[in-house]
Amino acid sequence: MTYRIAVIVGSLRQDSHNLRLARALMHMGAADFSFEQLRIDDLPLFNQDEESQPCAAVQRFKGALKAAQGVLFVTPEYNRSIPGVLKNAIDQGSRPYGDSAWTGKPAGVIGVSIGAIGTAMAQQHLRNVLVFLNMPTLAQPEAFLQAKEGLFDADGSLGAASRGFVQTWLDSYQGWVRQHSSAR
Amino acid sequence: MTYRIAVIVGSLRQDSHNLRLARALMHMGAADFSFEQLRIDDLPLFNQDEESQPCAAVQRFKGALKAAQGVLFVTPEYNRSIPGVLKNAIDQGSRPYGDSAWTGKPAGVIGVSIGAIGTAMAQQHLRNVLVFLNMPTLAQPEAFLQAKEGLFDADGSLGAASRGFVQTWLDSYQGWVRQHSSAR
Repeated sequence: MTYRIAVIVGSLRQDSHNLRLARALMHMGAADFSFEQLRIDDLPLFNQDEESQPCAAVQRFKGALKAAQGVLFVTPEYNRSIPGVLKNAIDQGSRPYGDSAWTGKPAGVIGVSIGAIGTAMAQQHLRNVLVFLNMPTLAQPEAFLQAKEGLFDADGSLGAASRGFVQTWLDSYQGWVRQHSSAR
Repeated sequence: MTYRIAVIVGSLRQDSHNLRLARALMHMGAADFSFEQLRIDDLPLFNQDEESQPCAAVQRFKGALKAAQGVLFVTPEYNRSIPGVLKNAIDQGSRPYGDSAWTGKPAGVIGVSIGAIGTAMAQQHLRNVLVFLNMPTLAQPEAFLQAKEGLFDADGSLGAASRGFVQTWLDSYQGWVRQHSSAR
């Protein structure tokens, strides 16, 4: 079988470091994995009054999540927490009560920032949320990347200094998905 | 002088418990306080590519924050964290770098939920963010309210069981604002 992974990038910036990281990761997967980035920029701000009649963008987002065998979060840190745009997508996917699209999907969390802590606090807040969503989430290795000269090569792939570590991380996540998806 | 407080409600639901709480609070203030709820439903999802040319809604939101002497957050908890819609407003108000509208504004955090923990985890995540934004935030008393029968009276004011506690909380917040606004 092929494990389909929904990739969610927590930044809407066109030249986002995390978008670049996500694209690099999507080319590093094993033969039995496929990756698809899901749009979150077209989701409206969550309003519980609308949850029983979700718009087309929310329906598409939730449908793609439900069809996936895992979810890979690639996110910056905004103000020491999860970007609002990402949290809004999480809220949209989680509702209405009893129809969350996240339940049970094995998750991976990775991020890159120009700061030295490499999105660590955003990742911790995100992990708190993923517990509530009942998503088994890869613990180790953790990946807190710093955007330095040479992180990416000219062709968009990861530079030599980080490639091995990120490959190990991705291999671990893929093993996690194989372990937790087959049980369902 | 009059202390103007910007009130931000973390739910867009029309019949939101937190909106009702905010409205009740706005009638319980001292004579030297005025309260204005700021819209956050019209703010676009934050995109750093747009931050140097913010839209009218973002400009209005930041202008109202800058004119305020304090910020009162009245918020539900979504998925054990800050609602995405509220975090998005925080992100919008914080950017671009060097032009945050939040800096130094004395903050209060309160929330109500139908669950027993009364938004405690959302409040903790929010407090983490407020540290980064350099907003002095009232510590005690904390206020974790549970939406039970009788929390509000028919006229929208707080019922007898909670009114005294919430008045004490608001008095403490107002004292905090007087203390921290006058220094600026």
